[in-house]
Amino acid sequence: MSDDHDHHDDHELRVSKIRSGTVIDHVRGGQALNVLAILGIDGSDGEEVSVGMNVPSDRLARKDIVKVEGRELSQDEVDVLSLIAPDASINIVREYEVVEKHRVERPDVVEGVLSCPNAECITTGGEPVTSQFEVLDDGVRCSYCDTIVREEIASLIDT
Amino acid sequence: MSDDHDHHDDHELRVSKIRSGTVIDHVRGGQALNVLAILGIDGSDGEEVSVGMNVPSDRLARKDIVKVEGRELSQDEVDVLSLIAPDASINIVREYEVVEKHRVERPDVVEGVLSCPNAECITTGGEPVTSQFEVLDDGVRCSYCDTIVREEIASLIDT
Repeated sequence: MSDDHDHHDDHELRVSKIRSGTVIDHVRGGQALNVLAILGIDGSDGEEVSVGMNVPSDRLARKDIVKVEGRELSQDEVDVLSLIAPDASINIVREYEVVEKHRVERPDVVEGVLSCPNAECITTGGEPVTSQFEVLDDGVRCSYCDTIVREEIASLIDT
Repeated sequence: MSDDHDHHDDHELRVSKIRSGTVIDHVRGGQALNVLAILGIDGSDGEEVSVGMNVPSDRLARKDIVKVEGRELSQDEVDVLSLIAPDASINIVREYEVVEKHRVERPDVVEGVLSCPNAECITTGGEPVTSQFEVLDDGVRCSYCDTIVREEIASLIDT
């Protein structure tokens, strides 16, 4: 790859290449912090992470990018991201080369990650019960109390 | 600046140069999301922001970097950052050149930004009272109820 190409990439991406890890690209503009929350990343574990927010993009008007160094995210881990970033593409990088590239797919069920907004739900009452939501075409439904959330799914993210 | 120099910088910084705005460098590793919270940035306003977390650094073992495109932060805005990132340096950038460079200084008083942890405090009871803390050498004290917080100041950040 020529220097010019690198420069073009850097300018476009606003965050530099990683050596090995996972690049989550084409995240909807403004959703990067929710992506980090879903992945359980807040920086306190010392993970090397870079984030670009509201970067100009061809495919989306504005996109976010999250790059996680030294960690290859599994399909299960990233599929939950489809709830807030349905257009996201996942690139697994080894030694600066993309070795796998795939899209997020809506999972049937999400365990943990989200908190039920119903204060009466057994999953929110301090009991040792992991939250579980069925994924609908247009939202999620709590498997325990049947509460349906269609918008603002990001507000359910368990931080 | 030569291409080689640019490349070195990019590799070191993990986030690319910005055209105009503010670079907050030498933030303590793992504090970048708290910096964003203090600055009121969550991506939803469309601000172009890039963040590097736990980047290897000479001065600190690991550092975070936050770059805000198109916004020159004032000394007042950044001084609050001293509570969680006392070593931070602030660079004001115009047309890719650093035109101002300064350090954060501990303010005497912080208005807003932090929430009092005392549930009985007038600032937390839904009254239209803005929180206010005096900055001590080793923590902060609520100006209304005198509650002192010495550690985990980050947990008081009003998100």
